[in-house]
Amino acid sequence: MRLPLLAVVVLLACIVVVRPWCAAAAKARHFKWEISNMFWSPDCEEKVVMGINGQFPGPTIRARAGDTIHVELKNALHTEGVVIHWHGIRQIGTPWADGTAAISQCAINPEETFTYRFVVDKPGTYFYHGHYGMQRAAGLYGSLIVDVAEGEEEPFKYDGELSLLLSDWYHESIHTQTVALSSKPFRWIGEPQSLLINGRGQFNCSLAAAHTPGAEQCAAVSRQCAPVVLSVQPNKTYRLRVASTTSLASLNLAVGNHKLTVVEADGNYVDPFVVDDIDVYSGDSYSVLLTTDQDTSSNYWVSVGVRGRLPKTAPALAVMNYRPNRASRLPALAPPATPAWDDYEHSKAFTYRIRARAGTQPPPATADRRIELLNTQNRMDGYIRWSINNVSMVLPATPYLGSLKLGLKSALAAARPADKFDRGYDVTRPPANPNTTVGDNVYVLAHNTTVDVVLQNANALAHNVSEVHPWHLHGHDFWVLGYGDGAYRGDAADEARLNLRDPPLRNTAVIFPYGWTVLRFVADNPGVWAFHCHIEPHLHMGMGVIFAEAIDRVGKVPKEAVSCGATASALMAGDHL
Amino acid sequence: MRLPLLAVVVLLACIVVVRPWCAAAAKARHFKWEISNMFWSPDCEEKVVMGINGQFPGPTIRARAGDTIHVELKNALHTEGVVIHWHGIRQIGTPWADGTAAISQCAINPEETFTYRFVVDKPGTYFYHGHYGMQRAAGLYGSLIVDVAEGEEEPFKYDGELSLLLSDWYHESIHTQTVALSSKPFRWIGEPQSLLINGRGQFNCSLAAAHTPGAEQCAAVSRQCAPVVLSVQPNKTYRLRVASTTSLASLNLAVGNHKLTVVEADGNYVDPFVVDDIDVYSGDSYSVLLTTDQDTSSNYWVSVGVRGRLPKTAPALAVMNYRPNRASRLPALAPPATPAWDDYEHSKAFTYRIRARAGTQPPPATADRRIELLNTQNRMDGYIRWSINNVSMVLPATPYLGSLKLGLKSALAAARPADKFDRGYDVTRPPANPNTTVGDNVYVLAHNTTVDVVLQNANALAHNVSEVHPWHLHGHDFWVLGYGDGAYRGDAADEARLNLRDPPLRNTAVIFPYGWTVLRFVADNPGVWAFHCHIEPHLHMGMGVIFAEAIDRVGKVPKEAVSCGATASALMAGDHL
Repeated sequence: MRLPLLAVVVLLACIVVVRPWCAAAAKARHFKWEISNMFWSPDCEEKVVMGINGQFPGPTIRARAGDTIHVELKNALHTEGVVIHWHGIRQIGTPWADGTAAISQCAINPEETFTYRFVVDKPGTYFYHGHYGMQRAAGLYGSLIVDVAEGEEEPFKYDGELSLLLSDWYHESIHTQTVALSSKPFRWIGEPQSLLINGRGQFNCSLAAAHTPGAEQCAAVSRQCAPVVLSVQPNKTYRLRVASTTSLASLNLAVGNHKLTVVEADGNYVDPFVVDDIDVYSGDSYSVLLTTDQDTSSNYWVSVGVRGRLPKTAPALAVMNYRPNRASRLPALAPPATPAWDDYEHSKAFTYRIRARAGTQPPPATADRRIELLNTQNRMDGYIRWSINNVSMVLPATPYLGSLKLGLKSALAAARPADKFDRGYDVTRPPANPNTTVGDNVYVLAHNTTVDVVLQNANALAHNVSEVHPWHLHGHDFWVLGYGDGAYRGDAADEARLNLRDPPLRNTAVIFPYGWTVLRFVADNPGVWAFHCHIEPHLHMGMGVIFAEAIDRVGKVPKEAVSCGATASALMAGDHL
Repeated sequence: MRLPLLAVVVLLACIVVVRPWCAAAAKARHFKWEISNMFWSPDCEEKVVMGINGQFPGPTIRARAGDTIHVELKNALHTEGVVIHWHGIRQIGTPWADGTAAISQCAINPEETFTYRFVVDKPGTYFYHGHYGMQRAAGLYGSLIVDVAEGEEEPFKYDGELSLLLSDWYHESIHTQTVALSSKPFRWIGEPQSLLINGRGQFNCSLAAAHTPGAEQCAAVSRQCAPVVLSVQPNKTYRLRVASTTSLASLNLAVGNHKLTVVEADGNYVDPFVVDDIDVYSGDSYSVLLTTDQDTSSNYWVSVGVRGRLPKTAPALAVMNYRPNRASRLPALAPPATPAWDDYEHSKAFTYRIRARAGTQPPPATADRRIELLNTQNRMDGYIRWSINNVSMVLPATPYLGSLKLGLKSALAAARPADKFDRGYDVTRPPANPNTTVGDNVYVLAHNTTVDVVLQNANALAHNVSEVHPWHLHGHDFWVLGYGDGAYRGDAADEARLNLRDPPLRNTAVIFPYGWTVLRFVADNPGVWAFHCHIEPHLHMGMGVIFAEAIDRVGKVPKEAVSCGATASALMAGDHL
């Protein structure tokens, strides 16, 4: 029913843009998945993880640009609903397939199957993950790699490819974590026990103990937590696809003795630049090129460390194995040290270097609307919340896409959230009045308008604390126009910091402590899209807003996406989508 | 909408039976509940429990016979559905309020509210609990006490009342437990860590260490796990209301130096008899009278111990505090020893003594149908399951009540389950062929027919093991006609063991190891009713059947009960209930 529609979209795209992949006939790729809880030892300690088809992380989806992905997803959990979000896929024409519970669809009930159908229109490094409660942190994630269409070529050359999906891991279940975060008095979940590379880590021991004071060498480890080995041939160039689906941690990745050339960010090509290490925030993805031009008699460590928070979690290590050396031969050199957690100048230097590759579509010269979002940590009735313009987001029982499409009165609060915050707010101090309220934070966007978003960071509740927040937008890429320190004033000095020439296109952008970030996007994709801090506990604590975009232009929503709550009631009473 | 209907039912009942409570005008009793996970220390170890309005156990409902209960239940869990079953309430005319997920209603989604409305037509000791996945074992339960209608009197006298809701408690979460039970290879969840009285126990210490070799005296304990104190005046008679909502454990309760007179079982009066202790299986409730005729200078222990399984769980203790002694004064005598776990003769002697009080409605003299259910433990594709007539029950995505009412083709498997099992089956040995399959186990019952059920126990997978199974029927009381050892043959000797004169009416009946139990009930309550072993892991492993009873006579099912799965789809497509 929706298949032909998607095919038409693809076909129209072919007719309009006449890309080579049209000739090659984009494929439909079918996947049949079942989600269940299972015992697993991601860091050598056995816990319960959410697996797909008995695997953790979930299976990798690999497709070509223009392909249609069909994932027939069965929920084999016992009492929990589930959804999967396809992070970085814009879902053009298929907003109901975005996989956000309470926003784009009803959570899939136990024993039910929901089929996600969507076009992967753009090559790049993506991933997918749970987007209900804190299920991403339960291990519900995997990689989604889109190659260029057949006959097309990437704008850079490489001989082989390696994939590194980064995450962090807590020993407490997400159920306990959500209770903690929702408790009065508040209980912070603390730092993760381990960092994982492709779902594997080692708790309480090090693969490189000889170089790590105080650490114990990991003994024989089980298959599930065995070190990741990246096998390479000498004197070749590899594309490392790196993505982070961490719950909390901001990360930095470095490879011993090797330079990294950044070529892609969030599914968009960037102007190549060379670095020793890359920062990867939750929600980010990168491709970096690495040439195996070092001493061929040795293996090398890949090191992943924590940024932006005083690290209590040991770095994750993987082995870059120069063939024909044995994979088990420990690298001669110490693992590369990732930068100090609070070296924000290093982070800014990296982030500011990311520019669009020549040929990338430039942003419109001006915006139709500017939405300024002040990020604060607040108190509410003894709870701790994150708020945007002093309203902390709560999600409704009935997903927005359906309720707005059906025009249900209950769908929105009467008052719309503010486009501005008080310019007098002192971002350098804890909030003078820390009290907040909850709300739906739904911004209604008119079709094809150009929207600027100013993300303004501030001091948290404690003195001298301001955290990093990587904000992720659904349904769109945005141009990252610029960054600044302190309060955004929108004056000439701030304007001068904006880059309208070659800003990078991304779907995730960070705000640095006490700083601001300006984004621009065109509201050209009818749907209801979440825009939120990608740190799982922060989102759970209300750090997000909703963009309801040109709802009148949304196509026919499949019934499976709306068969719950008020939309089910309305449709059962005879309303029509 | 359904309120007037219920009122009409009550009114009709008044007109027909002219009971005194009609004059007194039965009340509507309103409750507003919110279910959430919370930190709690039921046995002094902090874990996550499912609470209602921040309480564990949930609030006690107290009503009079004929009242209508309204519970507006909000699911404040984050990703889990929820329902509540009103154990022992027959739900005459309101089968959609029985609170069984996948059977009588769609699970209530997070942030949704469902209102249970039902008449408590019969005085007695009841309780309520979760009936989705293993949520009962997560602590979702509480007491429901129905007094006689105003102007009526109980057929026995007492001066005061004490309530003891018994349960067991695991330190592993139900999520981990369900994964264990559904794992290949199978992992047994083991014995509970603690027994609880009114939600309180003490792990790894004893309130009566002086009398308990090897035990450590409990130090100061927090409010949540403080010993239960039953305050009594000397020389009075108390009604102890005892119910068990354990996940696994069969229990025995004794009060030091005091005799117990059993007067009620499962909301039905029984012919009073005097014992030293009572067995209480999961799903059972009893009222016993106790006279405080002992040495008034002392307090006394109430002791609750494990039956039927080699106990690895310490007895639960409560203090019967003879006023004006201080509650904190430890009883002089040791806690009463409950019988040896495998003293089945003791259990049988107790169970066989339970007879209906004179005046109880007798069973019909004959049955229209006999359904014989062989209970076996089996293997299936590496999993371990419990099966009935070699089919292990699985529940559907769409609840039966709605799908059968709508006549959906998908509702039932083509083949109906068998009314008989092979008479040649050797119940004394592990199954010769342990393989089983899963199925829906739906028995379709014609209106007003009298049905006999023979529950036949057998040897489990291991040699010389046969477990106790307390079977609970929804929507009905049944007469317990009789018990026997070995294989039921239905011959004259077996028939002679049946009691048609004064069998007790109950909603839960036990089958003893290697034994059989015969029940009789009249299918006079249109609805879809679960009939299952009340041991939570056994039900989870398939030990149950479904009775679909006179579906054509079921009243209009509220939409809130069917707004999921195939029924939602059908109604959205224009079908009508």
